[in-house]
Formats: sequence, C-alpha cells, structure tokens
Amino acid sequence: MSNPDINGAYCPVPLPHNDQIVLGHGSGGKMAADLISKIFLPAFDNPALRAGDDGAVLDVPGGQIAVSVDSHVVSPLFFPGSDIGHLAVCGTVNDVAMMGARPLYLTAGFILEEGLTLDTLIRIVSSMKAAANEAGVQIVCGDTKVVQRGKGDGLYITTTGLGIIPPGISISGTLAKPGDAVILSGPIGDHGISVLAARGELGFETDIQSDSAPLNHLVAAMMSVSPNIHVLRDPTRGGVATTLNEIAAQSQVGIILNESDIQVRPAVAAVCEMLGFDPLYIANEGKLLAIIAKEDASKVISIMKETKYGEEARIIGEVTTNPRNRVLLKTEIGSTRVVDVLMGEMLPRIC
Amino acid sequence: MSNPDINGAYCPVPLPHNDQIVLGHGSGGKMAADLISKIFLPAFDNPALRAGDDGAVLDVPGGQIAVSVDSHVVSPLFFPGSDIGHLAVCGTVNDVAMMGARPLYLTAGFILEEGLTLDTLIRIVSSMKAAANEAGVQIVCGDTKVVQRGKGDGLYITTTGLGIIPPGISISGTLAKPGDAVILSGPIGDHGISVLAARGELGFETDIQSDSAPLNHLVAAMMSVSPNIHVLRDPTRGGVATTLNEIAAQSQVGIILNESDIQVRPAVAAVCEMLGFDPLYIANEGKLLAIIAKEDASKVISIMKETKYGEEARIIGEVTTNPRNRVLLKTEIGSTRVVDVLMGEMLPRIC
Repeated sequence: MSNPDINGAYCPVPLPHNDQIVLGHGSGGKMAADLISKIFLPAFDNPALRAGDDGAVLDVPGGQIAVSVDSHVVSPLFFPGSDIGHLAVCGTVNDVAMMGARPLYLTAGFILEEGLTLDTLIRIVSSMKAAANEAGVQIVCGDTKVVQRGKGDGLYITTTGLGIIPPGISISGTLAKPGDAVILSGPIGDHGISVLAARGELGFETDIQSDSAPLNHLVAAMMSVSPNIHVLRDPTRGGVATTLNEIAAQSQVGIILNESDIQVRPAVAAVCEMLGFDPLYIANEGKLLAIIAKEDASKVISIMKETKYGEEARIIGEVTTNPRNRVLLKTEIGSTRVVDVLMGEMLPRIC
Repeated sequence: MSNPDINGAYCPVPLPHNDQIVLGHGSGGKMAADLISKIFLPAFDNPALRAGDDGAVLDVPGGQIAVSVDSHVVSPLFFPGSDIGHLAVCGTVNDVAMMGARPLYLTAGFILEEGLTLDTLIRIVSSMKAAANEAGVQIVCGDTKVVQRGKGDGLYITTTGLGIIPPGISISGTLAKPGDAVILSGPIGDHGISVLAARGELGFETDIQSDSAPLNHLVAAMMSVSPNIHVLRDPTRGGVATTLNEIAAQSQVGIILNESDIQVRPAVAAVCEMLGFDPLYIANEGKLLAIIAKEDASKVISIMKETKYGEEARIIGEVTTNPRNRVLLKTEIGSTRVVDVLMGEMLPRIC
C-alpha cells in the first residue's frame, strides 16, 4: 500500500486528477486494468481481489464458495441469439464456473429507465428465466431501481453468482504451467459481431448469432474426466488475446498460439476483415479457454465434444517458460507475432 | 404457476402490456411490490425469493449464508453525511445483517458514465473503503462498465452482500408474533430529507445529515443478549410505514404504533410539515426495526443504547392478532389511523 492522495484514497502511482472516465475504461483491456490497479485494488485490497481472477474464492464454514459479479449494459437490449437478460445470467454463471465451482445462486440488481415498456421487461425476465433453467441456477434475490428518462438506456442488470467449489479443486489464472495445453471450446468473435450487427452499424445484413450460453455443464463434464485442469477462463471483453495475456501475467509464463487452430466462422472473419478488426480481440459469451496438463488434453477434448457447447473444442497452443508474460501467435504464413492486450475500446457496450 | 403470456413470461394476473416503467416502480412501495409479484416472482419463483425478506437464506455445505443485493442510483452522488459509495456498502451490509447474518463479503458492479471525473470516482471508492472497514467486510470482487454520456448519471453501484448465519438463528419478516414488542433504533427521516436538501429542492438550507451507517455491530450486540429476536428490518425506501406493512403481511399479524414514541428530529419534522410529507414514509439508511419477544425488550434496548447507532432506541409499538395485515397508529391526540404502504413515488432516487 502506498500514500494516501489528496482525497484520502490510496493511489500506488500518481493519477492525472482531472482525468475523466472514457469508454475505454469499460473495455476489459489495458485501461480497465489500469482503473482496477490504480483505484479499486489499492482501496479494497484483500487476497480474493488480489488473485485477479474473474471472481473470488471465499472461505465459509464447511468449505469454499466462488462469487463473481458483472454489470450488463449491452446495447441494443436484444440482438440475434441473445439479449441482455440471457447475457446477464450466462455471463455470471460462466464466471463462477470458470473458478471450478458449481454455480447455484444468482442475485440481480435492475436499473430501469423511466419509459421502458413492461413488455420489454417481461421479455428480458423471461430470457433470464430460460437461461437460469438451462444452467440449473436460482435467482434468489433482486432489487429494482428506476431512473428518469435520459439517465439510463432501457435497463441495466447487475448479477452476482455464487457457487460451491468442490473440495480439493483449485483452478485459477495463476496456475498455468509450462508444457500445459491451451484449449479453446469453439470459434470466436460471434458475440461481439452479432451485437455490432444488431446496432445497424455494419451497413449490411448478416446472420451471425451471439454465442451467449451457460458453460457450467461443459465445465462439469471436463472436471469429471481430469483433475488436472489448471486454468479456465471465458474470453469475453477483450477477447482471447486479452484473456490469455492476463493468464500469462498471472502465472508468469509465456503462451504460444497456432493461428491455424483458432476457428473463426467465415461470416465473422469477413466482417472483421472489412472493418479491420482482429477476431482475437472480439468478445465471446459462450466460449471457454482451458489450460490443462498436456497428458489430459485428449480425454478432456473428447468429453467436450460430446456436450452442446464444446463440439468444436480443440488445442490452440501451449504454455511455455519464455517469453514470460507474453502471448505469441504463430501465423498461418509461418511468422510469429506478439499478441498484446486490448488497448482502448474497439466495441463499447457489447456486454 | 399460471399461463404463459404472449411473450412466454409467466403472469399470474394480466398486466397492461403497453404500460411503461415509471418512477413509482422504484419506490419500494405498492408499485414496486406489484412489479415483483407480477413479473419477477412468477418467472424466478423459488423458496428464497418467495420468503419476501430483504435477502435470501441459502444452504451451503456447513451451514447457511445470507445474500442480499441493492442497486444504488442516488442523486446527487454526494449529500450531507454520506455519498453513493458509503450508501452502497451500508445498504447491503444492513440487509444482510437484518437476516441475523454476520456480513463478511461484498461484490460491487459499477456502471460509470463517460465523463465522470476520476477525482469523483476516487472519492466514492474511498468512502466505500471507509464504510467497509467500519463494518468489517471485504469487497472481494468487482466489475466496471462504462456507458456513453447521457446514458447514465455519473455512476451507479450495485452491491451484493454475503454473510454467515449462525447455527440456530432464524430471523425473518414472517416471524412476528402477537404480543411482541416493536423497537425502533432512533429518529426517522434523516436520510431522505438530507438527499432532498442536497438537490437544492427545498429552497432553503438545512443541516440535516443522512443517517447512512453500517448496523451489523448493533445487530450483533442485540443478538448477543436475546435469542428471541423474531424480525429485523431496516426501513429504507418506503420508510417505517411500508416496512411494517410488509412485516404485518408476511407474518399475518397487526401492528399498533404509538406516534408519541416515534422520534423525528425537529429539523426533519419542520421540512416534512412544510412539504406535506409524512416522516413515516421517508427513507432511512441507518435505522432498524426489531420485533422481539416482549420479555427481552428491555435488555435488548439496554444493549442497543450502548452502541453508536442505537443510542436512541425505544419501543414504538406492539404486534397484535388483529387487525391482521394492518398497521395502525395511535396518534398523539388520541385517535387511531390506518398506516398504509407507500403509493407511487414521493422522493425518487434517494438510494
């Protein structure tokens, strides 16, 4: 901990004090990480937060529980394949599942804008119910606030998930080991591009659907065949590139990816090509990255392929000792390039 | 459960489908209750939600935990005695404490509006830290989203709290019994009026400060001297009137209050008089209502008076068999009147 600044908050490095929040602070990339490391972490410092995973592992009598929170502000509220309600359930269920926990309970805080139609609210609540049923979780408490017209954008939903961590399980971004295999559960970029398309910003029609899905049953299947799953993470904001960089930094390892093994649907690839986006940075809401002992990789992939959301799972790379804290990509043309975290904000409000 | 409506959501009673959300739906009063009973509860139906308390009691290996969620949208962000950060911690700590649980952990979801100054964010985070330290809770995970200018109002904070329920403890709005004493921890209305004053809507200056405070240590003290605390509840949105009506309905009892025993600070009373507000409906953020076996009332009040936030505790009424589901007030002039729940919205965005 460092010196209190003039406002009594703790800042380990000087912050430009007249600076303002910009959309990039919500990106899940470099600016979001800065906000966490410079403002939130110093103030709230504790072991659970410091671990830097998507949620916290908490000791309670009788064992450990995992909790995770996500605020959802996606715009528009409805998009092909999903909506803000479905996303609010799946996103948080997945964060809990990525800690090796069995998600059981959700809380939901709704911030509604005056003028939202009850029809819209009912559709969204209905979607939350469907996602919760599929995941097998209960929404056990909620809160509703209403803000005046022009102080919101329809509705925002913040969900917190709770799950039970089975005894002996330890899965964390800090546990990747050189030699481990990196597995990706399917093609990337569907969610971010589907939201972009729903905004009408593409200037043409696509049939790309969000991949938003609860991944807890997939995780349970994987854990049933291997005790050697070291890291699980869903590559949402910031995409596969940012998520793997976070893991490399947490575990102090390198990660080398094979571009030819990373699947991107042709329609997603076409949109990315046209707009100059790299699919490695596009958000997913129904995919996971797993880092596991190499010897267990084939049996884990086999069982993933038997589940609804893991049919296209494959190894996309491996963990290395060097270059420490770096992600490298072996491209299809044979060169190698550094894959950095997301800088700034490419697609605001995609979750 | 009833018929699915045209949108696939479950509505036990027909809802006017072109209706819109209005500020009253966020009041904590009648309209908010309608939204819960007609939209949220039918969709998410489960025992924890159905209990109708401020949070949920969940079974986990080794015992029970309490969870509660609150979204905070107070405007302005800063007001005398507190701010949105302090409130976001205290409000949720209190909801967990009101279930007889020892609050331990919080999650926090931030929705920031583009353009918010980092200075403001730092002040609010600092305030959260101070409140968390006083309560003895850790903020174990968080999430930050950013929305464009004009799609928020500075920032909104949704907190979920987790606490451990000691073995054998059962405190719920359903457990009030005829003959029980109704205790109030201090004077009412300070929070709502302080926020109103901070908006500059009064047209004159006051020195009324919000009572926002973490009440978990007060609750622990009360529980240390009595195993017969049946109900605990903090009278926030909708005030003492709405909270006691909820308890009367949950427990199927009547509640009779003595107006002369309900304390209102002169400055608060003066503002209410001037604006035509009834202090019984004004939100508090650092007061609690307790319903306990009459024989334990004096020792509970004694220990309350020894704590920082219970110095002005007193008995304000009693639980009766009749009139069932009703709250009555014996006025200072000797008459008796019905005290109903809050209808519509008196003071939007006070928490």
